[in-house]
Amino acid sequence: RDRERQGMAKNTNMRWRLPLVCLLWELAMIVLFGVFVRFGAEADAHWEEEKRDMNLTSDMENDFYFRYPSFQDVHVMIFVGFGFLMTFLKRYGFGAVGFNFLLAAFGIQWALLMQGWFHSFKDGKILIGVENLINADFCVGSVCIAFGAILGKTSPIQLLVMTLFQVTLFSVNEYILLNLLHVKDAGGSMTIHTFGAYFGLTVTRILYRPNLEQSKDKQGSVYHSDLFAMIGTLYLWMYWPSFNSAISDHGDAQHRSAINTYCSLAACVLTTMAFSSMLQKKGKLDMVHIQNATLAGGVAVGTSAEMMLTPYGSLIVGSISGIVSTLGYVYFTPFLESRLHIQDTCGIHNLHAMPGLIGGIVGAITAAAATEDVYGKEGFIKAFDFTGVYQTRTPSMQGSFQAAGIVVSLLMAFAGGAIVGGILKLPIWGDAAAENCFEDGIYWEVPEDEESDVYHMHNPDKPASP
Amino acid sequence: RDRERQGMAKNTNMRWRLPLVCLLWELAMIVLFGVFVRFGAEADAHWEEEKRDMNLTSDMENDFYFRYPSFQDVHVMIFVGFGFLMTFLKRYGFGAVGFNFLLAAFGIQWALLMQGWFHSFKDGKILIGVENLINADFCVGSVCIAFGAILGKTSPIQLLVMTLFQVTLFSVNEYILLNLLHVKDAGGSMTIHTFGAYFGLTVTRILYRPNLEQSKDKQGSVYHSDLFAMIGTLYLWMYWPSFNSAISDHGDAQHRSAINTYCSLAACVLTTMAFSSMLQKKGKLDMVHIQNATLAGGVAVGTSAEMMLTPYGSLIVGSISGIVSTLGYVYFTPFLESRLHIQDTCGIHNLHAMPGLIGGIVGAITAAAATEDVYGKEGFIKAFDFTGVYQTRTPSMQGSFQAAGIVVSLLMAFAGGAIVGGILKLPIWGDAAAENCFEDGIYWEVPEDEESDVYHMHNPDKPASP
Amino acid sequence: RDRERQGMAKNTNMRWRLPLVCLLWELAMIVLFGVFVRFGAEADAHWEEEKRDMNLTSDMENDFYFRYPSFQDVHVMIFVGFGFLMTFLKRYGFGAVGFNFLLAAFGIQWALLMQGWFHSFKDGKILIGVENLINADFCVGSVCIAFGAILGKTSPIQLLVMTLFQVTLFSVNEYILLNLLHVKDAGGSMTIHTFGAYFGLTVTRILYRPNLEQSKDKQGSVYHSDLFAMIGTLYLWMYWPSFNSAISDHGDAQHRSAINTYCSLAACVLTTMAFSSMLQKKGKLDMVHIQNATLAGGVAVGTSAEMMLTPYGSLIVGSISGIVSTLGYVYFTPFLESRLHIQDTCGIHNLHAMPGLIGGIVGAITAAAATEDVYGKEGFIKAFDFTGVYQTRTPSMQGSFQAAGIVVSLLMAFAGGAIVGGILKLPIWGDAAAENCFEDGIYWEVPEDEESDVYHMHNPDKPASP
Repeated sequence: RDRERQGMAKNTNMRWRLPLVCLLWELAMIVLFGVFVRFGAEADAHWEEEKRDMNLTSDMENDFYFRYPSFQDVHVMIFVGFGFLMTFLKRYGFGAVGFNFLLAAFGIQWALLMQGWFHSFKDGKILIGVENLINADFCVGSVCIAFGAILGKTSPIQLLVMTLFQVTLFSVNEYILLNLLHVKDAGGSMTIHTFGAYFGLTVTRILYRPNLEQSKDKQGSVYHSDLFAMIGTLYLWMYWPSFNSAISDHGDAQHRSAINTYCSLAACVLTTMAFSSMLQKKGKLDMVHIQNATLAGGVAVGTSAEMMLTPYGSLIVGSISGIVSTLGYVYFTPFLESRLHIQDTCGIHNLHAMPGLIGGIVGAITAAAATEDVYGKEGFIKAFDFTGVYQTRTPSMQGSFQAAGIVVSLLMAFAGGAIVGGILKLPIWGDAAAENCFEDGIYWEVPEDEESDVYHMHNPDKPASP
Repeated sequence: RDRERQGMAKNTNMRWRLPLVCLLWELAMIVLFGVFVRFGAEADAHWEEEKRDMNLTSDMENDFYFRYPSFQDVHVMIFVGFGFLMTFLKRYGFGAVGFNFLLAAFGIQWALLMQGWFHSFKDGKILIGVENLINADFCVGSVCIAFGAILGKTSPIQLLVMTLFQVTLFSVNEYILLNLLHVKDAGGSMTIHTFGAYFGLTVTRILYRPNLEQSKDKQGSVYHSDLFAMIGTLYLWMYWPSFNSAISDHGDAQHRSAINTYCSLAACVLTTMAFSSMLQKKGKLDMVHIQNATLAGGVAVGTSAEMMLTPYGSLIVGSISGIVSTLGYVYFTPFLESRLHIQDTCGIHNLHAMPGLIGGIVGAITAAAATEDVYGKEGFIKAFDFTGVYQTRTPSMQGSFQAAGIVVSLLMAFAGGAIVGGILKLPIWGDAAAENCFEDGIYWEVPEDEESDVYHMHNPDKPASP
Repeated sequence: RDRERQGMAKNTNMRWRLPLVCLLWELAMIVLFGVFVRFGAEADAHWEEEKRDMNLTSDMENDFYFRYPSFQDVHVMIFVGFGFLMTFLKRYGFGAVGFNFLLAAFGIQWALLMQGWFHSFKDGKILIGVENLINADFCVGSVCIAFGAILGKTSPIQLLVMTLFQVTLFSVNEYILLNLLHVKDAGGSMTIHTFGAYFGLTVTRILYRPNLEQSKDKQGSVYHSDLFAMIGTLYLWMYWPSFNSAISDHGDAQHRSAINTYCSLAACVLTTMAFSSMLQKKGKLDMVHIQNATLAGGVAVGTSAEMMLTPYGSLIVGSISGIVSTLGYVYFTPFLESRLHIQDTCGIHNLHAMPGLIGGIVGAITAAAATEDVYGKEGFIKAFDFTGVYQTRTPSMQGSFQAAGIVVSLLMAFAGGAIVGGILKLPIWGDAAAENCFEDGIYWEVPEDEESDVYHMHNPDKPASP
């Protein structure tokens, strides 16, 4: 039959293609790192001299101690958080964790370079420190988000290609926002979530598979795969305060960021549970909502958490985003698929796109509403970096620039996603046929795990598996 | 039959009740936060001025850097630790992780308010910082403990109602202990564990279900659910040094607390393994003991860890608590159920109640035994806050007050548990019939996961699940 | 038949032996801690005086704040990282996590003593602080590595006996390297990985089981056990920067160590994926490689991470180690088993032994290549501790001593492993017969978990399990 022929026609053998891409790109990384990347002053063995020059009395003043604990939390979010969040599919756990691992490991190297050229370039060298590591993880976070939309439908090579381009575009967009528009976005509502999600949605739209219902039996979860996914959810949820505060200014800004995020996330859980139950006939809770919509509160304060959003403001934002996200899963995702042909495996539109937009808007409003009274004279200038050429900027101007940042991120996402989607559509990357989607067996050696063999080992009639 | 009628009669549909409770309470939180909660000086944008006023030379002096890493560890313990520890049941993993998530997310908000009114209230506002977040997590920890006793037998609304009351009572009890009795309890042997466990045990006594053997087939574990539970166990075990040191004084007290807890927990593992093997005919180890009793060492030094308990003292306390806890699982839990009608799903009597009492007593003894010689003159005053009205307090007086703290915690737990148990007994909260206990399907949409479908996908005769 | 008789003859009942060993050894720990172990100055209540004497102006100068976050990461690596990494076997998850827990909990106590006598002994007392906790975890890490070689084939008593001896030998070896040879090895390429792996390989050689194919059906993984193992992998991978930087000098050295390790690990993932795909006919990825070889990059920069290896140097080392490790799994492990009779359950030869050697060699080269130009005059002296009797040491001398450190570690591992293997071969420790290897049921109460009961609960003909 047609379907079978199509299936047959697809060559998913990665044997030479994947190694070639991995090895060539790693070689490129080595060369580029060799030419460009060096230790920043705080990681260089000349630190003792630096300390003297800067009049620092203690090693504690090294940025490492301000940011390393948050870095490790962010690191866990990227690799365990995103990785395990996506293991909810019954037969795509290896792909979820494994491909996330692969693309993130490549992405952080490329991001160190790209972001380095834009932000840490000095005398022909990129000087890196712990903040660069955090930013590289952040950048890759946006790729992990986009991965969520195409999960199960793409080959590892496609993911690597997407990573290469998305990291590049991310860095350009980030540069426009942070440097040209002088926008604040420490937790990345715009740069990471809005950009990453709409980029991924555009890609998956371009890669639309009309026959995807052929693998519908594999699109659900099983009991234990839902528990694995909860590991991802909880680590994202717990460490999100670190995510939003990781690159904020030392002192009060990091402190405030963590508190706002903590509050927003707590509120988000309650409204998510409420709407998950309310929208089901029998009032039962849906694991998909608990695994995802509970996190929207972290996304939605990504821009404003380091500002004086206040704890109750955070509760409001968190509550709203939980509601919006859960409604999205129930009503919006089916609509996107049937009407707009956007097949969004993990529902990133609900978890990242809409809450990301909320985050950008809340950030713009919070910035526009800032006053010297609330921030203190010095605090006001410090919070928004109103120094140098920006010392005449007013809160309302800042709010407008923040809003412009949302628009730029959206445009970059749509344009970039369209181009990259087009590239990924080329028939050379080894993606699977529709009926083989969401199936680890295509790209992984999967244990022939008749669990029955294990659990019924006493059964003498059954031959043991090899 | 009778049983069926009873089952039928129970209305477990959460559709309007759960959303109503969640949304109304979240609304209340927003209003109360709006009226009361503001950033403390170290999280406020006025920090630059504060720094000048306090003559602080570095942002590092912000309490955020002293406590945030410990906070994150505690956060993991509450959400992943307690959540996954309770996934050992074969069919209650969603409820264990999910309801723990729900009650803790609500509880931390309410705790920020309750504890704020008692401890951080200034000029009509509650001023919060990272220490408040830790304390809120601590407070919720006591609810997670109580949850362990009623796991699988209660509706999510009952859990939210219990959380509301328990957080309130916890805060009152904590105020009496810390402020009125001037008791030391940084790791919460009394305030968290003794109070939380006896509260939960009283509640489960009141909610006694005579027909619970009807769901006996679901009260056990399966192979992989035991591994999920070990995730919870290990995170509790590993991060317990952070738990006991999180709110200790800066410097030596935090340092000492972590060391004592590390030692106590290490010893506890060995005695638990020893008794687990010894008490089984064939000498086989029991996962229930390993999952739980290994943690008793953390509970049992909760009060004394920040004192000069010394490493060998910690080993002794840890060793004893492991033995007591394991014996409890083997002999005490069956006794409690059959004789006292206390159905303690997770065995919190063994993991939190008895070790909590040990912890309170060890704390009283360690305090009573304190001398200026051991602590140093300044260290002695600092360790016990013997300043102001307390400067005449002697170690033996302190020991007595510590002992009084145990008694107060017990009384509060029994009285509070009885009242709250009575409230939870009302037939309006949607709890399940006895034969439906320990079954996620009542409150959760559970995937129809014939794993067989997954593992035998090659079988052409079997129709694919939808 | 013969095989059955052999099986029958083995007495694996732990009832009195395991408790006896655990309790006696814990008692010994208590006595030895009582005699020797006290708090170091930074954890002692006299800290206020110490601070004054040392002219420290802030509690932040307490070593606790420099190292505690890294300590917790290392702690997670030992208990969750190693524990879950070894859960890949379909029926040995309890043993993997549980025995790792047991041996590590004992090992850290004994290591505090052994390392304390060598490194923290003052006026007849061992003075401990957070750095001692890290070092104890490190020491136990080498035992966890050795455990990987004999996983599934040994009784818990054998593991405890091995731990006792290995910790002792580790400490002697470490003393020779760090104190006598004045070698740098902050991340333990030599002391932890090379020593631990070759020790374990020697032990498993001595314990060679010719009939191990009798339990071959249990030597593989099942789908979900591979996902549990990925939890271990990712936590090891993510926290490895903390591992390699945990005990480096304050400031730039810790900072640099983390960056180098981050880079090396990222590169390692790409080359591992490349070779895993390349070496399989159909180009499919093998979970065994992803779970293990991706970590080789952390091992291979263990010695040099705190040196000026540079980010691109780290990429090179990481790339090579991923290749070597993956090749090892495909070609070397079968060779070791069939020709040298080394049965290496987890493939520690590929993950720790070879990368450990690479790490030692890279360390020697990096040290030998050090110049004052690269490190700065002060940085050079500080990085290699070229003070006191070592102030005349040149980089090339240091390189030679580093190389000598590899040789010493190897000799200690072979000699020690041979002796300890001989001891473990005594027929008194209760190890299982060949056909019962890799089976939790021997030492654990395993739930009779016909998952079928759970998943087919609707089936009325099936009796419920108790």
